[in-house]
Amino acid sequence: MQKLFDHIKKYININENEFQEIASFFETKPVHKKEVFYTPGSTSLKHYFVLEGCVHMYFVNDRGTEQTLQFAIENWWITDCLAFQNNRSSEFFIQAVESSVILQIGYKEQEELLLKFPKMEIYFRNIYQTAYGAAIMRMKYMFSYSKEEIYCRFKEAFPEFINNVPQYLVATYLGLSPEYVSKIRRKSIS
Amino acid sequence: MQKLFDHIKKYININENEFQEIASFFETKPVHKKEVFYTPGSTSLKHYFVLEGCVHMYFVNDRGTEQTLQFAIENWWITDCLAFQNNRSSEFFIQAVESSVILQIGYKEQEELLLKFPKMEIYFRNIYQTAYGAAIMRMKYMFSYSKEEIYCRFKEAFPEFINNVPQYLVATYLGLSPEYVSKIRRKSIS
Repeated sequence: MQKLFDHIKKYININENEFQEIASFFETKPVHKKEVFYTPGSTSLKHYFVLEGCVHMYFVNDRGTEQTLQFAIENWWITDCLAFQNNRSSEFFIQAVESSVILQIGYKEQEELLLKFPKMEIYFRNIYQTAYGAAIMRMKYMFSYSKEEIYCRFKEAFPEFINNVPQYLVATYLGLSPEYVSKIRRKSIS
Repeated sequence: MQKLFDHIKKYININENEFQEIASFFETKPVHKKEVFYTPGSTSLKHYFVLEGCVHMYFVNDRGTEQTLQFAIENWWITDCLAFQNNRSSEFFIQAVESSVILQIGYKEQEELLLKFPKMEIYFRNIYQTAYGAAIMRMKYMFSYSKEEIYCRFKEAFPEFINNVPQYLVATYLGLSPEYVSKIRRKSIS
């Protein structure tokens, strides 16, 4: 769990002993490629931190294709926030894009963790603040550029992210047309 | 500032005296209809809380039209989060849609406030968590429905919001075509 420890230390001062206690609130879960570890309507929605690999949250649209809403690569958090904060089930799927190792924490456990370690509020405030800021920037990209341009611009701006995620998934994440997504998918397979 | 006090009390316990001190970190600012109170590149980016009225954050796209990225009505916060948390200037405009009264707090002041009242971390963690969750839901709407359907669905789901914001602005917020926006604008004027 060293990665979570290092990530938390970017925002707050905690020592090894405190972290051992914090870590006890989490459960490590290896997930294999394509494994859907949360399905819509299930009561087991948790907050997930990616230690290794890549996961995404998606729904199936009217055309029957998967539409990615969020990604998480190493050191990123992912969940359906609105559902999680209301301790409700989500309408979305959460799936491993590749073989991954995740940490998970339930709603009740996260509440307990925050009560016991109030300084973790600082950590989570920063996590959500960054995630919200990034969501607005993604929206800006989606509104600013033509379908062809958006993919290239995004690739230029976030090379690390693009290199860790299959290209056709990035394309659906950016709201590109199914045709454009297929084109990229064919390209990346060939 | 009663509205901010009430809003904070939804998330944490604070008494009147504590709030008086918290309030001293904020500045009240009346803004008139169409007033742009933040322009791109200015160093005075703050975090804004709407006491009355409605404000939005936008950029001007290649076609020269305003594209709304975020709204804030009564009891909502607004800023360019990524820029604010890095204490940098933003590339966006923030403007009053109608006559409004806002509270504003600078980056340094917000940091001081959080140091002095660590429980305000809980408040802001909740604010950002909700904003992030809402941004993901907006994305879901944008990906799920046809241009015509999205506006009606959104109106159904968030009637309070729609009733407080000019319809053509909601349309640009949802990424609808300039033509569709004009149609709604003409309709709402006539």
